Amino acid sequence: MDRKQIEELLEDVRDGRLSVHEAVERLRHLPYEDIGFAKVDHHRQIRCGFPEVIYCPGKSNEQIAQIMLRLAPTGHNILATRATPDVFENVKKLTSLEKLRYESPARIIVLEQAPADCETGSIMIVTAGTADMPVAEEARVAAHMLGQHVELIADVGVAGLHRLLVHLDKLRKANVIIVIAGMEGALASVVGGLVSCPVIAVPTSVGYGASFEGLAALLAMLNSCASGVTVVNIDNGFGAAYAAAMINMKIAGK
Amino acid sequence: MDRKQIEELLEDVRDGRLSVHEAVERLRHLPYEDIGFAKVDHHRQIRCGFPEVIYCPGKSNEQIAQIMLRLAPTGHNILATRATPDVFENVKKLTSLEKLRYESPARIIVLEQAPADCETGSIMIVTAGTADMPVAEEARVAAHMLGQHVELIADVGVAGLHRLLVHLDKLRKANVIIVIAGMEGALASVVGGLVSCPVIAVPTSVGYGASFEGLAALLAMLNSCASGVTVVNIDNGFGAAYAAAMINMKIAGK
Amino acid sequence: MDRKQIEELLEDVRDGRLSVHEAVERLRHLPYEDIGFAKVDHHRQIRCGFPEVIYCPGKSNEQIAQIMLRLAPTGHNILATRATPDVFENVKKLTSLEKLRYESPARIIVLEQAPADCETGSIMIVTAGTADMPVAEEARVAAHMLGQHVELIADVGVAGLHRLLVHLDKLRKANVIIVIAGMEGALASVVGGLVSCPVIAVPTSVGYGASFEGLAALLAMLNSCASGVTVVNIDNGFGAAYAAAMINMKIAGK
Amino acid sequence: MDRKQIEELLEDVRDGRLSVHEAVERLRHLPYEDIGFAKVDHHRQIRCGFPEVIYCPGKSNEQIAQIMLRLAPTGHNILATRATPDVFENVKKLTSLEKLRYESPARIIVLEQAPADCETGSIMIVTAGTADMPVAEEARVAAHMLGQHVELIADVGVAGLHRLLVHLDKLRKANVIIVIAGMEGALASVVGGLVSCPVIAVPTSVGYGASFEGLAALLAMLNSCASGVTVVNIDNGFGAAYAAAMINMKIAGK
Amino acid sequence: MDRKQIEELLEDVRDGRLSVHEAVERLRHLPYEDIGFAKVDHHRQIRCGFPEVIYCPGKSNEQIAQIMLRLAPTGHNILATRATPDVFENVKKLTSLEKLRYESPARIIVLEQAPADCETGSIMIVTAGTADMPVAEEARVAAHMLGQHVELIADVGVAGLHRLLVHLDKLRKANVIIVIAGMEGALASVVGGLVSCPVIAVPTSVGYGASFEGLAALLAMLNSCASGVTVVNIDNGFGAAYAAAMINMKIAGK
Amino acid sequence: MDRKQIEELLEDVRDGRLSVHEAVERLRHLPYEDIGFAKVDHHRQIRCGFPEVIYCPGKSNEQIAQIMLRLAPTGHNILATRATPDVFENVKKLTSLEKLRYESPARIIVLEQAPADCETGSIMIVTAGTADMPVAEEARVAAHMLGQHVELIADVGVAGLHRLLVHLDKLRKANVIIVIAGMEGALASVVGGLVSCPVIAVPTSVGYGASFEGLAALLAMLNSCASGVTVVNIDNGFGAAYAAAMINMKIAGK
Amino acid sequence: MDRKQIEELLEDVRDGRLSVHEAVERLRHLPYEDIGFAKVDHHRQIRCGFPEVIYCPGKSNEQIAQIMLRLAPTGHNILATRATPDVFENVKKLTSLEKLRYESPARIIVLEQAPADCETGSIMIVTAGTADMPVAEEARVAAHMLGQHVELIADVGVAGLHRLLVHLDKLRKANVIIVIAGMEGALASVVGGLVSCPVIAVPTSVGYGASFEGLAALLAMLNSCASGVTVVNIDNGFGAAYAAAMINMKIAGK
Amino acid sequence: MDRKQIEELLEDVRDGRLSVHEAVERLRHLPYEDIGFAKVDHHRQIRCGFPEVIYCPGKSNEQIAQIMLRLAPTGHNILATRATPDVFENVKKLTSLEKLRYESPARIIVLEQAPADCETGSIMIVTAGTADMPVAEEARVAAHMLGQHVELIADVGVAGLHRLLVHLDKLRKANVIIVIAGMEGALASVVGGLVSCPVIAVPTSVGYGASFEGLAALLAMLNSCASGVTVVNIDNGFGAAYAAAMINMKIAGK
Repeated sequence: MDRKQIEELLEDVRDGRLSVHEAVERLRHLPYEDIGFAKVDHHRQIRCGFPEVIYCPGKSNEQIAQIMLRLAPTGHNILATRATPDVFENVKKLTSLEKLRYESPARIIVLEQAPADCETGSIMIVTAGTADMPVAEEARVAAHMLGQHVELIADVGVAGLHRLLVHLDKLRKANVIIVIAGMEGALASVVGGLVSCPVIAVPTSVGYGASFEGLAALLAMLNSCASGVTVVNIDNGFGAAYAAAMINMKIAGK
Repeated sequence: MDRKQIEELLEDVRDGRLSVHEAVERLRHLPYEDIGFAKVDHHRQIRCGFPEVIYCPGKSNEQIAQIMLRLAPTGHNILATRATPDVFENVKKLTSLEKLRYESPARIIVLEQAPADCETGSIMIVTAGTADMPVAEEARVAAHMLGQHVELIADVGVAGLHRLLVHLDKLRKANVIIVIAGMEGALASVVGGLVSCPVIAVPTSVGYGASFEGLAALLAMLNSCASGVTVVNIDNGFGAAYAAAMINMKIAGK
Repeated sequence: MDRKQIEELLEDVRDGRLSVHEAVERLRHLPYEDIGFAKVDHHRQIRCGFPEVIYCPGKSNEQIAQIMLRLAPTGHNILATRATPDVFENVKKLTSLEKLRYESPARIIVLEQAPADCETGSIMIVTAGTADMPVAEEARVAAHMLGQHVELIADVGVAGLHRLLVHLDKLRKANVIIVIAGMEGALASVVGGLVSCPVIAVPTSVGYGASFEGLAALLAMLNSCASGVTVVNIDNGFGAAYAAAMINMKIAGK
Repeated sequence: MDRKQIEELLEDVRDGRLSVHEAVERLRHLPYEDIGFAKVDHHRQIRCGFPEVIYCPGKSNEQIAQIMLRLAPTGHNILATRATPDVFENVKKLTSLEKLRYESPARIIVLEQAPADCETGSIMIVTAGTADMPVAEEARVAAHMLGQHVELIADVGVAGLHRLLVHLDKLRKANVIIVIAGMEGALASVVGGLVSCPVIAVPTSVGYGASFEGLAALLAMLNSCASGVTVVNIDNGFGAAYAAAMINMKIAGK
Repeated sequence: MDRKQIEELLEDVRDGRLSVHEAVERLRHLPYEDIGFAKVDHHRQIRCGFPEVIYCPGKSNEQIAQIMLRLAPTGHNILATRATPDVFENVKKLTSLEKLRYESPARIIVLEQAPADCETGSIMIVTAGTADMPVAEEARVAAHMLGQHVELIADVGVAGLHRLLVHLDKLRKANVIIVIAGMEGALASVVGGLVSCPVIAVPTSVGYGASFEGLAALLAMLNSCASGVTVVNIDNGFGAAYAAAMINMKIAGK
Repeated sequence: MDRKQIEELLEDVRDGRLSVHEAVERLRHLPYEDIGFAKVDHHRQIRCGFPEVIYCPGKSNEQIAQIMLRLAPTGHNILATRATPDVFENVKKLTSLEKLRYESPARIIVLEQAPADCETGSIMIVTAGTADMPVAEEARVAAHMLGQHVELIADVGVAGLHRLLVHLDKLRKANVIIVIAGMEGALASVVGGLVSCPVIAVPTSVGYGASFEGLAALLAMLNSCASGVTVVNIDNGFGAAYAAAMINMKIAGK
Repeated sequence: MDRKQIEELLEDVRDGRLSVHEAVERLRHLPYEDIGFAKVDHHRQIRCGFPEVIYCPGKSNEQIAQIMLRLAPTGHNILATRATPDVFENVKKLTSLEKLRYESPARIIVLEQAPADCETGSIMIVTAGTADMPVAEEARVAAHMLGQHVELIADVGVAGLHRLLVHLDKLRKANVIIVIAGMEGALASVVGGLVSCPVIAVPTSVGYGASFEGLAALLAMLNSCASGVTVVNIDNGFGAAYAAAMINMKIAGK
Repeated sequence: MDRKQIEELLEDVRDGRLSVHEAVERLRHLPYEDIGFAKVDHHRQIRCGFPEVIYCPGKSNEQIAQIMLRLAPTGHNILATRATPDVFENVKKLTSLEKLRYESPARIIVLEQAPADCETGSIMIVTAGTADMPVAEEARVAAHMLGQHVELIADVGVAGLHRLLVHLDKLRKANVIIVIAGMEGALASVVGGLVSCPVIAVPTSVGYGASFEGLAALLAMLNSCASGVTVVNIDNGFGAAYAAAMINMKIAGK
């Protein structure tokens, strides 16, 4: 029941075609869906060009292609994250979408249909090591598609502190910093202690043995002695970018 | 070696009282401490009235009192978190600080010496159940002392969705939302799906059995299907308040 | 906005005191709360005399007493679970409720104000050992207060199979069986293999060492080779009773 | 020793062909097998057409085929769960069973020999995301083969609450609801809070990082704040369907 | 229905007082209990004087006393394990059993009513450190009450190998060896590599930090590179003694 | 330095060809190896035909072949456990040992050079399900090569208790029972409660989800409520067979 | 049998008082103990004044006192670690040892009977926070009693990097550094990256929630991206001091 | 800004070409990088020929090749650890570096450009089993490239103690011992108890089931009852070699 139908119902009441009692009954069965017309923001993610996002693992190529084709006509940008090159090839064939492109280290399929128009903030991404780059790239591409300015400082793990400290000015100027690190994840605490802006920490599954697929870095980041550090799931570059973009949107007053 | 000393050194060089070689040697032994004069912000936490914070567990009453007495003359506000009533009584006696007060459910000792002057933002705290209140109070008191407007919506766990939805307007107007929940921690995902602002999730140790002291809620929050949710340590109300305050400060352009 | 207010709104539309456009706007701001009048069943748990339930841990005596006093006037039965004798004494004093009684091994405070009137089904509770009795009693008292016939077969762990098998007829006649066991939790699988009714397994924290506070029994029950066994949280006698009561209500067509 | 043999034994006693002492001795060695004639229901799973079930992993194609061929002559329906397409092809060849078919996303080999004749109840399956579909399909096919009416509501995760709420009426009419969700598993609690029927929660291994192969969802579901939710093993769609079918059979008085 | 009743039933059939059909029906309802007369050994643990055993934790003093009083008239020896001194005092008062004694480091209440009469074997108990003594004493007292010869070699942890090797002859002569060790649990592997008899390893909760309450020792013992080592639960001295006694009984041909 | 060399040394001392001081020095450097002549039994595993055992994983085909060729001339039987068919093919080629054979489900390469001559005991292997067969076969082949009589009762999981009980007599006659089960591992407790002989439990990695690769079964078996059950590592069929053989050797007085 | 006894044995052989055969037999029964005369260093820990060490937890006051009294006459220094003040009071009374003193934050009972005489090296102890002091003190007192020069830099956690960097010169001059940190344990990596000497990391149980009693710090330290960091058990200040002292002894050529 | 630039700045001040104020400003913006000229040792790892090290996993062949080519002109030795043969082939092609060689069991790509010139110490590597060899080889090759004398004692697990004890003299002469063991990791404690030098323990992922990929060995080594044992990450042969080399360098006074 959309707004139009409710208007018609009210007109029927007004014009005597429907009793008040009957109208109450009909409203009583008003599905929640329709309530949405009032307040539920069905399209939270589309504000000022936020892209639609498809998380690929566990979906068949056919399912990804179908969702892609259903979303494409909205004109929004679309991201399909954690896609293998093989998935991309298949989805490209299945959808015949010319503009579909593959951001390789980020493992994201991008359908860029409109320029992101909420370019409000700037995000600094900092990584501990080269092996963290796929996650960093996921964050970078996602943030870019979310209309953010992004800058990347790579390979500044805490075992070589000087490599990090040389970027201190840049770090201090950032609105939000995303710190990406595997192994012992110490970079989040060190960066968190140097700056006064929100720090979002992304543990990565980089490491072996007692890193337990990123658990060591995750626990370290959750226990950060630097106040103001918040954490997302292991390898969740997209989630960190999304949270950072939300902060930037608030800063921009959107 | 502070700025003044460096100026004097340079003046000595300028005036020929010190050779270039000798000056290089002295700068070479410049302790990092002094480098601070240039860029290290020793007092990150004191910006616009941010309080000094003492984490009590593992410290003796004497140690807490000593730190308190050392910090008091700065005129800053001081918080001592996770303090038992007993610790408060002892610290009060040991310090003889008249203004020391105890925020009881929050378990924070407060020395409020100056009004927080960075009242920039507003934070909404949402809790799942009554048993989450100590953590919520820790967040509320901390946020207040960090100069934030705070509002609290209590006891709106997902098993009674209507209790949450009635607050939807308030939630949608918030700058930042802190969601505090134990047991299965589902509230973070539900709130995260309803709003477009940053959500900071605090798992609590409320629960028993397979909650494993908050682990269940922690994992649930880290795996939130709602993008934009970030997480802090179990029961870390203070940390969530701090991160939220940082976001608000950025929004206020500080 | 309750049903009456909506009727008035519709009458205003009918009688021309309110334009259709204005009425749509008002409905548009209809808080979710009010939607409840239509479909949200605020009082799910009160159907045919289901008691109100307060989970005590993490709540102060004052909070428990307050909730108790707020709920008492509804005339419903009230349960406060996981209450220590000490909590009971305090809550009794704070509320001055004469009828408040304490079910000791079950650790439940009961305010029985009306006979449970949905006595529809029968539940069989089976325990592995004497140490499982507090959990079994929690389930038994809760099921009784939920209006169920309950029977208890105690101390029939799988190491003495004959003790269990002698009750086979009773087991086979039950509508629902709640199996309560700690240590290796094997009883759930054995019972599950002997009967054709739904079996709800409750792992208990009975055991030591590698029982890891009930984890061993929990995992065993989740991996039961007997189809049809479902599991609740460790020591969650109440939850098992509640789920069993729901099944019985469905059987009774309520 | 079946009923007939025991009758003969008793007749021999009656007719003096066997002494009482000898008869006692023979009964004393009565294998438990035979006791079954009295009370052990060997064929628990075959009641009113319940299918025979083979769990494939860990069994060779030859073993699956052999069991299939041994069970086929009973005329019962047969399910082989968790079968890969490759296993199906091999088992088909090895058994030469024409009617063997493969339910693809459900990963079940079906030999449907007779219509399920206990069509007593109706089960609602609710899933959080597209990636949960294989588990949902396993539950759906299994429930269908167990003679149940099944309905499926897909992709209604809690991050988009409106998608779920639009189905509220359907949910409220169900006898039993199976909730299938990975990641944070919050859907079980939300659904559990909206309905008054038994809810069986199936955590799935959908997710990454701190989902730890479904552990996060499992713990969340076990800690559900909604009373009446019971849980089965990770990805155990079949088990949930079986338990739901048992409840429905009890409702139907079978 | 005991043997006598079955004889009577058969006599009734023989003598024509009972029809074959009726007798079959009665046998059909023969409770499993009675089947025991044939084959179920109700008293597995009482063979040749094996004591009755009560595991105390989770049982109230009253429950322990009741079980004790119920078992005492059998004339068997009775052990109540994991009893605190306080439990002993209370049980002694409640039962008024004069002969009740407390084995202090073993934490066992003993009611010795008859000499153990299956003195068949000899068991060597080896401990790594002084802190393992309570578990060792539990094993020693239990083994003694099970009628075994027991010898104890204490404090021969692997960090001082020479202390162990000096006892090599004794170790090589043992029938069964119980190795009790906490911390890294290495003693089981070392002993297992030196002897040719069965080794039962008991991990203890001795240790701290990454010993995780005995988990480290448990895992080490399960992974022993010495073939022939089997393991019981953490701190389960009684269980090890029981298993060792069973081996000895088999050696003695009982 | 063997016994003969020591005799010669002593003879040299006796006959004045060697000074006491020099002899002490030589004895002082007596490698531990040689001490073995006195007490260290280098060949613990070779008693009465015990085979040499090679654990394959982590070793290259070349390494396995080399060890095999080095051991073959001793005339002992040789087992290489956890070998894939591929490893067998390679090792066969590399060693050119004609008699090398592959026990397929057991995954053991066997070089049988002499009949096992310590045929002393009898071992009963009991498995819960078909998927446990590879582990059971590993145990069976190993026990056979260790000179034991072995009998196997397969597929008697606790969900169908009657299938197990029919074998009760056989179980009661066994010297030692090896119980092999995955999933919830309940079979060990049930068997342990029915018999009076030592039970060695082998958890298997059969299962999925919350079985956590055998952890659920392992914990269940360690927490067995049946006294006398000891446990070996997950899937360790060989270890169980070895421990059982040791018990049987003691029973045979070897 | 000491060297002297062996000499006598050889002299008896030389002088014809003992046959070669008899001598072989005696040597054959040479207990391993005696082998020590040749190579086993019974007193590894007493080199150059290394103290005897008693680990208190799990030992009764009586046991500690007995060991103390047995060791005292050797004249060595004695440490009893992890002792509560209460244990100290009791042991003092039980032993009547005047010189017994209690190092309070270190929780060590000290009997200093001789000056440590291997003062060879210098150890730098670095701690992250005030709450790590008990562990640091345990390390400091232990290192002192092991004859080491010790220096302590406290409260230099990575959230305030400048506090650490100001001590860089001192750190660079150390022989060995012990880094003690709880929470996220990042200090070990940061220090490890700044210096070229061995770093021994001690995780502490300081923290809460997801620190899991020191597990987070432990994992972080094991995954340190700074090469050359080794780790000891959680809170094991003594162990770190001991390992550091061993390195220093090697440096000193002892 | 290097030393030269700072000299020039000071000369400009001296000669009046730059005001003191301006010089302070320039120093104020002195990047941390440049501070290095004073104290930060950028090239910690290059001391006396220490090689540059690349950890391969998570890096693409292209990235490894690029880093290799960037480092090669320094003339230092270069190690790329955890490289598969395939990675080696690709990197060799991509870099066209003739001298690149592959150390096969160690999985290290080596570019040896200069003899290691800090041959100061000697390291003993001890392994428990053949399957630990890849980790041992990683340690051996790394130690060799770090300029150390290395010796290897293989296959001396504690189940055959005599195989270890025969090497006691060698062990006692070592400066540092690296103990490499999987399964129960007991070798570290046994070796630690026999020697007086620092022992670095490397748990390996050798094992199965409850070894949990090396967790069992890791925990055992962390809980070693032998003081002085420190631990590195699972399978971290390189890290152990690096730490051992650092100790040796200190011993050599470098």
